[in-house]
Amino acid sequence: MSKKVAVVAAAVTKFGFRNASYRDLISEAGQACLSSLEGALKPGDIDGFILSTVMPERTVFQGHVASLAEETLGIRPDRLSVRVEHMCASGNVALRTAYSAIVSGLAEVVMVLGVEKLNTPVPGETILNMGAGLDREWESSMGMTAPPVFALIAQYHMDQYGTTEEDLARVAVKNHTHSMNNPNAHFQKGATLEKVLTSRVISTPFKLLDCSPVSDGAAAIIVTSEERAKDFTAKPVYLLGTGQAVESFTLANLPDNLSHWPALVKAGKAAYNMAGIQPQDVDLAEVHDCFSIAELLAYEGLGWCDQGESAAFLKEGRSDYGGNVVVNPRGGLLACGHPLGATGVAQIAEIFWQLRDEAGLRQVKDAQIGLTHNNSGPGEHTVNIFGIEN
Amino acid sequence: MSKKVAVVAAAVTKFGFRNASYRDLISEAGQACLSSLEGALKPGDIDGFILSTVMPERTVFQGHVASLAEETLGIRPDRLSVRVEHMCASGNVALRTAYSAIVSGLAEVVMVLGVEKLNTPVPGETILNMGAGLDREWESSMGMTAPPVFALIAQYHMDQYGTTEEDLARVAVKNHTHSMNNPNAHFQKGATLEKVLTSRVISTPFKLLDCSPVSDGAAAIIVTSEERAKDFTAKPVYLLGTGQAVESFTLANLPDNLSHWPALVKAGKAAYNMAGIQPQDVDLAEVHDCFSIAELLAYEGLGWCDQGESAAFLKEGRSDYGGNVVVNPRGGLLACGHPLGATGVAQIAEIFWQLRDEAGLRQVKDAQIGLTHNNSGPGEHTVNIFGIEN
Repeated sequence: MSKKVAVVAAAVTKFGFRNASYRDLISEAGQACLSSLEGALKPGDIDGFILSTVMPERTVFQGHVASLAEETLGIRPDRLSVRVEHMCASGNVALRTAYSAIVSGLAEVVMVLGVEKLNTPVPGETILNMGAGLDREWESSMGMTAPPVFALIAQYHMDQYGTTEEDLARVAVKNHTHSMNNPNAHFQKGATLEKVLTSRVISTPFKLLDCSPVSDGAAAIIVTSEERAKDFTAKPVYLLGTGQAVESFTLANLPDNLSHWPALVKAGKAAYNMAGIQPQDVDLAEVHDCFSIAELLAYEGLGWCDQGESAAFLKEGRSDYGGNVVVNPRGGLLACGHPLGATGVAQIAEIFWQLRDEAGLRQVKDAQIGLTHNNSGPGEHTVNIFGIEN
Repeated sequence: MSKKVAVVAAAVTKFGFRNASYRDLISEAGQACLSSLEGALKPGDIDGFILSTVMPERTVFQGHVASLAEETLGIRPDRLSVRVEHMCASGNVALRTAYSAIVSGLAEVVMVLGVEKLNTPVPGETILNMGAGLDREWESSMGMTAPPVFALIAQYHMDQYGTTEEDLARVAVKNHTHSMNNPNAHFQKGATLEKVLTSRVISTPFKLLDCSPVSDGAAAIIVTSEERAKDFTAKPVYLLGTGQAVESFTLANLPDNLSHWPALVKAGKAAYNMAGIQPQDVDLAEVHDCFSIAELLAYEGLGWCDQGESAAFLKEGRSDYGGNVVVNPRGGLLACGHPLGATGVAQIAEIFWQLRDEAGLRQVKDAQIGLTHNNSGPGEHTVNIFGIEN
């Protein structure tokens, strides 16, 4: 029985407003991932398939999607098949599911594919669909959708620590600058502080560029046991640690201090402990910047700086190339886009390429340890840690 | 690290056309399950939560439902949270996910809760929603929904082996008779051969009572490591074996012999091998009788009789009390109803009670080994095997 798993292949589609069906996106990411192992991967090698997707039942009126994806790709998993969902964290939760399946012996070579087709031709439908990701009965139907939830959190942080709108905007500037080197990003034109600050107000203090866009896209990885990994690649990327914690679903049940996220601290500690590393050992990270404030709170919750110091940490360049930890080198959710089920898988793909020194213009020098983080909301967090040393 | 897991608690709501919300159903099953361990289970003991549910995004316009369920129940899982979906097999797939999580060390005490609220107040909506469980682009939108898919399979079996409409009806009679002893079943009035055969035609050769109804309901179990199991109950029920295989999603891609299901044979063999038992060792089974023909094909695919002999096997009483294997003692999907995500979990609950000798009027004598089976369609099968010996 394997004790460790490794990522051995990865592929990501272009994210954005895609003129492609849900099935097209699955095919595009899945086939690219399979092709990347041409020669090494034999038909029938893939014995497990995990689909990460959030709301195809609403956006494309199709359910039962793990099996649909398998048939689309010509994969017939003879040991394991499942669709997993945990809102925005689905991709990193899917990797944990693959880890467990492989370590427990239920499968050995597993494709994890994340996909979402969010843009639909029906006007006004997207906002209704996205509202179904929060509590419709008690919150989102009354207007408490994701932007105001995170805006309240930002206001709390501003009030407590003197964080400014410029500080928030700097997250967007950094990530939109990073995505200029990422041909798969939804946006690749960069952004200045002025552009962010003068974009239209969405929910005070957020302007348009403080918010991740509504994107379509897909991403796929292949995960296997440490024993099998070298059959597929000379440079496997190992999952060293993982953690998850849920403390609250609704805003109403968050702790009073809205800008302190205990579930993130808990998930991070679990992952660091399992990996046997410290926060400062992380070279690069893909964190969940669904809104600009979320990236700042990730610095604090993941232990890269103290509470209230994230704005300074960013301003001093410590979360950028040449700093302590390069955060969101592919451009984050803000600039890459956020096709819910695909996001976490695309983050893992980026860490895979970075740790293998294959990230081209985005390459972080001497990257040894990478981290991925998703929130499914401020009270729910998932963290995975990767390394090139087994 | 544990190598085995056990079920230590179970609860099932009344299935049927329920005047209860999705959240109400979660609360009803979850609280009953937690209460059944009162005294033994301490707050915070549950470190993992897995929700099995298929289409709340459509039927109740709510996503992100694992976290919603946790908050509803006051559970704050600090190690693992995920919603899993595999159409009609979601419940048994969720147990496999719990098995992997516990054996791989990601969680230790996991609640698996299955729920579905299928009946909605919008006329005609149910048939559209159910169609989303098959390929809408290529099959169900053209009318190839579940009843005609399984009707074609039944016609094939009738043509090949001389199976008759009476043979199919006998499945419904047996299961509707069983459910007279199950207060949670959707239907509890029993059924005669005449009643089944004269009920209205749905899709030839199926009459109404050859088809499982559209039901609301929920079920919950608590699963833990073999090490922790005895902390909760003196009579844990162990998962001995599990198997899953997917060979096709659409009818178009099924093998030419529609009434032979190789994916079921594969999933069954995997579970038997892992459990170290033979088909004839199974004392009772909860198999997926979404339509009457599906139960007959389960006898054949699971190795209780040869191909083409299932109608005789049933007619001779070998799948009833006093026979070789008691199939669907709680009444099956035909009589209990089929709230998709809840079905597999309710099947596991039945095996839990039966193996503990707690099934009352439905009790199978000297039950040592129980089996659960779901299909997610004719080309996709999941099998779990349980025992009281560790």
